[in-house]
Amino acid sequence: MDSSDVRIQIPDWLKHFPDDERSIFESVDMRMQLAISLSRLNIKYGTGGPFGAAVFDMDSHALISTGVNLVVANNCSMAHAEMVAISRAQQQLGSFDLGASGLPRLELISSCEPCAMCFGALAWSGIRHLVCGAFAEDARAIGFDEGPRHPAWIEEMLRRNITVKTGICRDEARDVLSEYHRSNGVIYNARQG
Amino acid sequence: MDSSDVRIQIPDWLKHFPDDERSIFESVDMRMQLAISLSRLNIKYGTGGPFGAAVFDMDSHALISTGVNLVVANNCSMAHAEMVAISRAQQQLGSFDLGASGLPRLELISSCEPCAMCFGALAWSGIRHLVCGAFAEDARAIGFDEGPRHPAWIEEMLRRNITVKTGICRDEARDVLSEYHRSNGVIYNARQG
Repeated sequence: MDSSDVRIQIPDWLKHFPDDERSIFESVDMRMQLAISLSRLNIKYGTGGPFGAAVFDMDSHALISTGVNLVVANNCSMAHAEMVAISRAQQQLGSFDLGASGLPRLELISSCEPCAMCFGALAWSGIRHLVCGAFAEDARAIGFDEGPRHPAWIEEMLRRNITVKTGICRDEARDVLSEYHRSNGVIYNARQG
Repeated sequence: MDSSDVRIQIPDWLKHFPDDERSIFESVDMRMQLAISLSRLNIKYGTGGPFGAAVFDMDSHALISTGVNLVVANNCSMAHAEMVAISRAQQQLGSFDLGASGLPRLELISSCEPCAMCFGALAWSGIRHLVCGAFAEDARAIGFDEGPRHPAWIEEMLRRNITVKTGICRDEARDVLSEYHRSNGVIYNARQG
């Protein structure tokens, strides 16, 4: 029997990213560029799949937390970029509810649309704004998939007062997926386990 | 910016549960009774919501890992019982894929049907067998809900070669939910955040 805590280790490069803590990300495109950079760096450093995410304060445009896919390195199938970014934001802000009163308006930026798990997790996270880069079909094109996601996922988000934008900087986001594919990156769980 | 790892702390009582490491759980009812005990103890010790889960080796009937709902104590909305049990099993076995060749046949027993997030997470976990106690409607009856879960969730599990049994020891599982409700336990995110 395992007596240990659940732990997802953040790679060193991500702990020190970005170099300039004072960076401000005024436009949604700038914020998406950061998430796409994370997905690209995760390939470069060999720390996981080609997915990046970040939580931002929508008013000050400050970066709150970052996440990348860390499934393989951590032996943890829930360590998707969105889950890592959300959990780190919650830890940092001391609240399991990112929509709690007293907190700034927060936004999750993800380099790709959420899978079935991350979609469900978003509903519990309290986040009120979701922005996605690549479409699910772009991930499918290289062998990843979104799993058994609710067929009306955007409507379900809206019903819970979570705004959704998708296809923001799609071409750049998709380019990273293609790059990963060309580099023969691991497509784990491709057998739909 | 948060530079820390993601961490879900396991309460001391759970680290030492069960007392007798040699316990064998031959029948599915015995395994469910353990998950229900976890849900009850999580209320008793005030460490989280009324949900328990465990991963078992279906051949030897040995207990591999346990989980309870730890959302509030850890400020972590993904810390549902199923997520904790699955992640701990993956850490212990050193594989993000609980269906990998070389591993025993593994089963997730949960005191209640999965929510939208845990349903999606199950698909990625590699687990091949899911057994649930209380129905989603039993959780809804006390103010929890399953979130935007796929309307055909059981069929989607079966399509991915994951067997599903539900309503096992339902009365006992539901009794724990009622007990939590009577004790005025926290129903977090009831506003469908």
